[in-house]
Amino acid sequence: MTDQLHRGAAPDAARLDAADPLADRRALFHLPEGLIYLDGNSLGPLPKGVAERVAATVSTEWGGSLIRGWNAHGWMDLPDRVGDRIGRLIGAAPGSVTVGDSTSVNLFKALAAAVAMRPERAVILSDDGNFPTDLYMAEGLNGLRGRGRLKLVPRAEIAEAIDADTAVVMLTEVDYRTGHKADMAAVTAKAHAAGAVMVWDLAHSTGAFPVDLTASGAEFAVGCGYKYLNGGPGAPAFLYVRPDLAGEAVPALSGWLGHAAPFAFEPAYRPAEGAARMRVGTPPILSLSALDAALDAFEGVDMALVREKSVALAELFISEVARLAPMGSLTLVSPPAAARGSQVSYRHAQGYAVMQALIAEGVIGDFRAPDVMRFGFAPLYLRFTDVAEAALRLADILSSGRWDRPAFHARAKVT
Amino acid sequence: MTDQLHRGAAPDAARLDAADPLADRRALFHLPEGLIYLDGNSLGPLPKGVAERVAATVSTEWGGSLIRGWNAHGWMDLPDRVGDRIGRLIGAAPGSVTVGDSTSVNLFKALAAAVAMRPERAVILSDDGNFPTDLYMAEGLNGLRGRGRLKLVPRAEIAEAIDADTAVVMLTEVDYRTGHKADMAAVTAKAHAAGAVMVWDLAHSTGAFPVDLTASGAEFAVGCGYKYLNGGPGAPAFLYVRPDLAGEAVPALSGWLGHAAPFAFEPAYRPAEGAARMRVGTPPILSLSALDAALDAFEGVDMALVREKSVALAELFISEVARLAPMGSLTLVSPPAAARGSQVSYRHAQGYAVMQALIAEGVIGDFRAPDVMRFGFAPLYLRFTDVAEAALRLADILSSGRWDRPAFHARAKVT
Repeated sequence: MTDQLHRGAAPDAARLDAADPLADRRALFHLPEGLIYLDGNSLGPLPKGVAERVAATVSTEWGGSLIRGWNAHGWMDLPDRVGDRIGRLIGAAPGSVTVGDSTSVNLFKALAAAVAMRPERAVILSDDGNFPTDLYMAEGLNGLRGRGRLKLVPRAEIAEAIDADTAVVMLTEVDYRTGHKADMAAVTAKAHAAGAVMVWDLAHSTGAFPVDLTASGAEFAVGCGYKYLNGGPGAPAFLYVRPDLAGEAVPALSGWLGHAAPFAFEPAYRPAEGAARMRVGTPPILSLSALDAALDAFEGVDMALVREKSVALAELFISEVARLAPMGSLTLVSPPAAARGSQVSYRHAQGYAVMQALIAEGVIGDFRAPDVMRFGFAPLYLRFTDVAEAALRLADILSSGRWDRPAFHARAKVT
Repeated sequence: MTDQLHRGAAPDAARLDAADPLADRRALFHLPEGLIYLDGNSLGPLPKGVAERVAATVSTEWGGSLIRGWNAHGWMDLPDRVGDRIGRLIGAAPGSVTVGDSTSVNLFKALAAAVAMRPERAVILSDDGNFPTDLYMAEGLNGLRGRGRLKLVPRAEIAEAIDADTAVVMLTEVDYRTGHKADMAAVTAKAHAAGAVMVWDLAHSTGAFPVDLTASGAEFAVGCGYKYLNGGPGAPAFLYVRPDLAGEAVPALSGWLGHAAPFAFEPAYRPAEGAARMRVGTPPILSLSALDAALDAFEGVDMALVREKSVALAELFISEVARLAPMGSLTLVSPPAAARGSQVSYRHAQGYAVMQALIAEGVIGDFRAPDVMRFGFAPLYLRFTDVAEAALRLADILSSGRWDRPAFHARAKVT
């Protein structure tokens, strides 16, 4: 379909693959033949071993042990064991991360605990382009409390907007539309200098590059299990509580499994120590098992190498798109590498249709309203040759106008 | 080990099995050979078809379709489709039940919406023997709101305790320790007569006997996916919102998937219609698939027959225990059938050790502190002969004193 010889193949993609220290990781994933998957920032692919682990959890553990599984297979501690594995990727000490519930619910827990630490201050500060559920959850919390105010400013103005009335700064490290990566250490320091509590959403960070929560000093963080961690659709999310808050962070969703002694069935709530106090209900064992097995792909991986490859993949994509595509209709909205997460986004007035055409031709990215096409670069399974080919196909679709067909304009329920 | 001839077998268990209209359902479950499972009220066994469905969801849907699974496999509507299937078992209209999150989190949502309907009243009323997480979650909600009071009275005094300051009556239909089954219609009517909002916890009801939420007029209900519904360890829970509240119940956990247009990414929250507004984060597809497949076992089942068999199983157990066991140390704490759910409980000063001995001999029930032994009767897979044999073994363990060994006194982490 495309005359690759005429336009020229990407100059050094194959050489980059040959020199890639993470190249062996690709074999740890099931990747449909012929598909180039640039949407691991939305739903990671299926890692090998997950199907087998889930099958064993269902048939052997649940089917065979029944209720005895809680003790026999260590189900009760699974949220904290998986939390410790995620903790290694985000610079969190053992015992400071627990896994369960959705990202939204975990954000609510973190925010509720954070505002309780600054009762005299009114404002939860965030950026007006934050992922909507974060803003909605903050709204809901303020509504419940009957006080507090969600103040939104443009992302670039967050640091200056922190003041003496700021109770909590709530920020997503990587912007879901543009891929802009905030300076975690600097924003946290600014928040602390003003006496505010810091809550990070690491949805687009965890597993994509090294995060150092401990060094940042942030009080709370949440993140997602199904993006770069590849835990499966709707995988459990996680919550980080800074270790020195282990005995004081208030769990607003004070469920029995956050109790210090769940099986004593005491009439009054008494929180456990550490992040475990943020547990609420019975842990979702099937999906926790999937996530636990998925994390095997990160075992022994140096996250600095992951970052290095992520940047190189994205740079190759950007340069190839610039070289091959008609750029008139396409606007790169992601910042330069130093201030970028692991995705590259372009605005295009017909971005939805262009993305559908690209998907139809075997390159999966996604679309975020109103006009953003996103391409995610997950270094564990993507090759440089994949990225170069994706850029080529995008350029070809744009040049040919093949995206402008009725089928590609019809909006699906989920975008 | 037991001289059955001497004591006499249960008089008519085999005959009851032969006449059981639900007898064919047992074949729909994987039940470990030789085990008598009387703990389906804590964790239901693995239904056939679940392993296959989960495997397909993991490998074919997630592994093969990746992000396209949200549209291709209807993942996004799964919480509501599964909700409608549960709705049939609890007398709830289509669209009034959604599935996701834990029972505790759903209770929080229901309670928060309920108290918002009575802002001028201070009290959440419950019984002092309610399952602790329900009480803890109410405590947490009041703490967040900075107002409201949790008033606890003995279960028998709930109806009289409802007064003009009662905002919400929160009750678990079946008491987790005693198995006492409240009169849902009467308590709800009493709550409404006093102007209070009713929230039912159906954890030990759903799938065990018919519930008629519509007839009761209750505003909210929550329940559990892993007990009598057999959805697997930590299965998603459900939440019912009375249909006429579809446009007004306030979602305090206002997440993006409860938004009227999640993929419009609007900056302000705008709830969906119906129970769907109580959705929060991304639905847990693996565990929802397991629960969906598990519900096949209820397909076409008349819940009135389930109740009839549940009562007959429990009555047989009680009469056999009374006939065979040394009753001096054992106190039946469950009420007569009309006021009982689908479990039978006994107090025994050494209940923990007795239960461990019984489990070691192949009959699984469970223990609830401080001294209650629970036996659950799930009519879809239990036989009358199982129940008679369980009573015989319990009697034998008590008579012989075989429970009084050090190994049986050592407390496990999870009881």
